[in-house]
Amino acid sequence: MKRISGIVSYDGTGFSGYQIQPDLRTVQGTIEQVLQRMHKGDFVRTTASGRTDAGVHGVGQVIHFDTTLHIEPSAWKRALNTLLPADIRIQSITEEDPDFHARYDVSAKEYRYRILRKFDEDVFRRNYTYHFPYELDVLSMRTAAELLIGEHDFTSFCSAKTEVMERIRIITKLEIEEAGDELVISIEGNGFLYNMVRIIVGTLLEVGTGKREATDIPSMLEKKDRDAAGKTAPAHGLYLWKVNYKKHC
Amino acid sequence: MKRISGIVSYDGTGFSGYQIQPDLRTVQGTIEQVLQRMHKGDFVRTTASGRTDAGVHGVGQVIHFDTTLHIEPSAWKRALNTLLPADIRIQSITEEDPDFHARYDVSAKEYRYRILRKFDEDVFRRNYTYHFPYELDVLSMRTAAELLIGEHDFTSFCSAKTEVMERIRIITKLEIEEAGDELVISIEGNGFLYNMVRIIVGTLLEVGTGKREATDIPSMLEKKDRDAAGKTAPAHGLYLWKVNYKKHC
Repeated sequence: MKRISGIVSYDGTGFSGYQIQPDLRTVQGTIEQVLQRMHKGDFVRTTASGRTDAGVHGVGQVIHFDTTLHIEPSAWKRALNTLLPADIRIQSITEEDPDFHARYDVSAKEYRYRILRKFDEDVFRRNYTYHFPYELDVLSMRTAAELLIGEHDFTSFCSAKTEVMERIRIITKLEIEEAGDELVISIEGNGFLYNMVRIIVGTLLEVGTGKREATDIPSMLEKKDRDAAGKTAPAHGLYLWKVNYKKHC
Repeated sequence: MKRISGIVSYDGTGFSGYQIQPDLRTVQGTIEQVLQRMHKGDFVRTTASGRTDAGVHGVGQVIHFDTTLHIEPSAWKRALNTLLPADIRIQSITEEDPDFHARYDVSAKEYRYRILRKFDEDVFRRNYTYHFPYELDVLSMRTAAELLIGEHDFTSFCSAKTEVMERIRIITKLEIEEAGDELVISIEGNGFLYNMVRIIVGTLLEVGTGKREATDIPSMLEKKDRDAAGKTAPAHGLYLWKVNYKKHC
């Protein structure tokens, strides 16, 4: 038995999210179908670094699975990409130590969020950016972003449906860059709660339009109440960009 | 009765081409359904600068139609975009002279073609670029492009199914630009035959990989035979970029 990891990209548009669900087209379900085909009908369970919601895209999602097949990493990549649909692509395959775990061994994750600032909608980016045709004060947004960096209890910045009890997370990077007609928000941290990135983005946008003050961020965090923060930005602007792992010693 | 023109963008991915066809989702059919709704059930015929094939995208397609409605151009744009699906967007609406004609008055058209030169496929650009993971000699391609500029009989560079008899066209611009991991071919001319841009791109790519010599272009043109030129590049890399009109005096 070998443990294999893979870096997976997917266009989230055509999927009902990452996680397998009966009768729905999901990224996990699609990958597991292909693995089952490669294993002559034997079911192969995959484990991902975490799930992503419907419409959210993957650039550097990481998965692992165990296999009895003797295939070289480059041949694995080729075989999987031949069988997978065009909206899922394997970027790379690595043979791991048997104790590598795509979810438990995560040391940091980076998400990106693309905001389209043009007045008119763009047919080619409608599924890949959040169209936001309002003036934005990017400097205020950066001030607010600075106040979110560090170790905080992010209860105010996660869905009320969040089941995990421990809501302290560390944000190590939160950058807002202007790239042509887009604003790209990059956020890196040791872990993210349910909808946390989308609520942070929604809150930053409310700061950008003047609906909220950047200096209110500390009191939003303190309230530990979902209603204290801004709206959840839509899924289709969000990308799971990169997953980092702790080194095994 | 007023004559209205519109600049229309569309993502060609979800359409069976521009031109209306029974029981198929087409750009023209979709626009005419919306116009019929706005005209309380009265059918409104639209005329475009020309059709585009299934999968081909529109950035600056131009249409015209006649209407009895009294609506300002900006309100027309808003109303149409509210009723149209997200993969068709009206960029602008203009009130024209009654003799303006979106097809007959065209003085020049520009097409662009996007080639993705990475080894790996890209999930986000799979419908918007032609993935071409082979080495390309761009200088030779530019030499070949130069030889296509000007007035020529393009019989060798149009589909054998072309019905028009007159195959002389003028190419006024044919540029090949490197843009990151893409190669963008821009081609402007006074008119294009069926599949002409895609056959020119396919031929330039065969020059780029060394399958053909740039200096063979003149003899390809002379043969006036479809088999003399290269393959037809796929539809989904192609964009109808801009349509120019002659000025009315």
